[in-house]
Amino acid sequence: MSIQSNNNKPNGGGIEIGQNTIYNIVLLIVDIVLLVFKFWLTIIQEIIKIFSTRPLEHVNGKLVLITGAGHGMGKEMALQYASLGAKVLCWDVNEQTNTQTVKEIKQAGGTAHGYICNVARREEVLELATKIQKEHGFVSIVINNAGIMPCHPLLEHTEQEIRLMYDVNVVAHFWIIQAFLPAMIERNEGNIVALSSCAGLFGLANLVPYCGTKFAVRGYMAALAEELRKQNPLSKIKFTTIYPYMIDTGLCKNPHYRFPNLMKLISPKDAAASIIEAQRQGLEEAAIPRHFVGVEKVSRIIPRKAMRLVNDFLDTGVDTDKI
Amino acid sequence: MSIQSNNNKPNGGGIEIGQNTIYNIVLLIVDIVLLVFKFWLTIIQEIIKIFSTRPLEHVNGKLVLITGAGHGMGKEMALQYASLGAKVLCWDVNEQTNTQTVKEIKQAGGTAHGYICNVARREEVLELATKIQKEHGFVSIVINNAGIMPCHPLLEHTEQEIRLMYDVNVVAHFWIIQAFLPAMIERNEGNIVALSSCAGLFGLANLVPYCGTKFAVRGYMAALAEELRKQNPLSKIKFTTIYPYMIDTGLCKNPHYRFPNLMKLISPKDAAASIIEAQRQGLEEAAIPRHFVGVEKVSRIIPRKAMRLVNDFLDTGVDTDKI
Repeated sequence: MSIQSNNNKPNGGGIEIGQNTIYNIVLLIVDIVLLVFKFWLTIIQEIIKIFSTRPLEHVNGKLVLITGAGHGMGKEMALQYASLGAKVLCWDVNEQTNTQTVKEIKQAGGTAHGYICNVARREEVLELATKIQKEHGFVSIVINNAGIMPCHPLLEHTEQEIRLMYDVNVVAHFWIIQAFLPAMIERNEGNIVALSSCAGLFGLANLVPYCGTKFAVRGYMAALAEELRKQNPLSKIKFTTIYPYMIDTGLCKNPHYRFPNLMKLISPKDAAASIIEAQRQGLEEAAIPRHFVGVEKVSRIIPRKAMRLVNDFLDTGVDTDKI
Repeated sequence: MSIQSNNNKPNGGGIEIGQNTIYNIVLLIVDIVLLVFKFWLTIIQEIIKIFSTRPLEHVNGKLVLITGAGHGMGKEMALQYASLGAKVLCWDVNEQTNTQTVKEIKQAGGTAHGYICNVARREEVLELATKIQKEHGFVSIVINNAGIMPCHPLLEHTEQEIRLMYDVNVVAHFWIIQAFLPAMIERNEGNIVALSSCAGLFGLANLVPYCGTKFAVRGYMAALAEELRKQNPLSKIKFTTIYPYMIDTGLCKNPHYRFPNLMKLISPKDAAASIIEAQRQGLEEAAIPRHFVGVEKVSRIIPRKAMRLVNDFLDTGVDTDKI
């Protein structure tokens, strides 16, 4: 106000611009000071969080949707969520294995419903989602777990393999999110979990297109969290990206390692428990084992040439499934 | 040898196992010492490289294939490679714009051939690649440039948009590589360049599926470099992943920024020059501007919550193209 009333000088217009500029500069400096303060405060808070135990959100009575629930980690997550009191919606393209999961949950006294769905087909996903939300209500936790992992050199990958991998491992996630996110936005709650992989953190031989799909999951999840935050800075919807190392689910057919004690196959049961913990803690990124996200962050700073020496020393990876 | 001949003790077998273990431990220690030495040597070499000018590989007389050559950065790369004496193979799905690029190259005294190809169709790519390699010989440099960028919230993306995006921005790259990599492996030379994006380094609002495609490019390229290195430790085939920031090609319809002088749209001409330089220097990763790779590496260590404060302060991004 005082700036605008100051017009007793001959070249009033010019001064006004000058004063506006000064005003903007002051605003900018205040903004920078605030940024620096909040930035370091957040870093200190985040460091403290590392050393404190995060509270676990309860899942009792909540609806949890798991794709690929007929097998491996999907099945284990379904069993464990049910044992925590959640109502589990088991989706799989394979009716037999999916029914088996539902049966085991019911036998253990849990609540589960099985649905046959090819998640790569958008119409099928949207129709089933509408039906489920009408019948059961709000789905709190959605876990994009279904995935396939052909494992051989890129030049040996067929068109069908690559297309199916992108359809199931990435594109299907978008149909699921388009089906269940609107209700989450409406209630401003919910959790979307996506299965990436350590192949979404590091580029691995014999897994060229697969690494593409798993990096894609990491990328779209970061973008989605950012998009929701931009749409509503007070958004409480949580996004959790999971990077499992080699899990003993049958996906990983020919693992090899120089130091089996240091890096061994993790059981689907332990992996599922780790994923559920990450979701309940509201972690944005969680590797299995956890420290792998840190390894990636550090290795990203080290020149690739030097990291290759470490990789060659550790000599860990997956061999082609065509042997 | 001396270990094995040492069998004058009563419990020879047991001792032999013990000696083998000792032998293995010594080998391991030697391996670790060598690793540490080579690791730090490589880091020093890489740091020196940052401050030295890298030699530029000549492209004169070489065959360069560019997809999406009818428009934007693809067109500019075609013109600039031709002006450096390369024979340019221009691929595009749009005959009119592609022919225009070839015409401009010829008018400027360069050599170019135009081909109409929908890179998303594997058969079409493989057939054209066979024809080209028969007619023109070895393609030294392959640039997977063609891409599309629909820009709006995930919930507004149509099935067709998402499928086409994954087909063109990622899956098509595999067909091109499957077509041209075998000849490169045979001659142990060549360069594959792939256009990722800063949306392949950071998750950005309004670009959720697009970020997925561009992270995918980053991931499969890292994996492919690793795969080739594992197949042949002396492989000389180079892989270059490019992360352009906002380029003024029409792809980026509604950019916004708080500090236009700090982060402005880059011209396709400057971007093309930067990509060609990165390829000729044999860089594995190159952002435009270059320092963005460093920004990503550093930002990856900083907690996301703190990085979001910086993002909000800079307030830079792309608005939906549906306004």
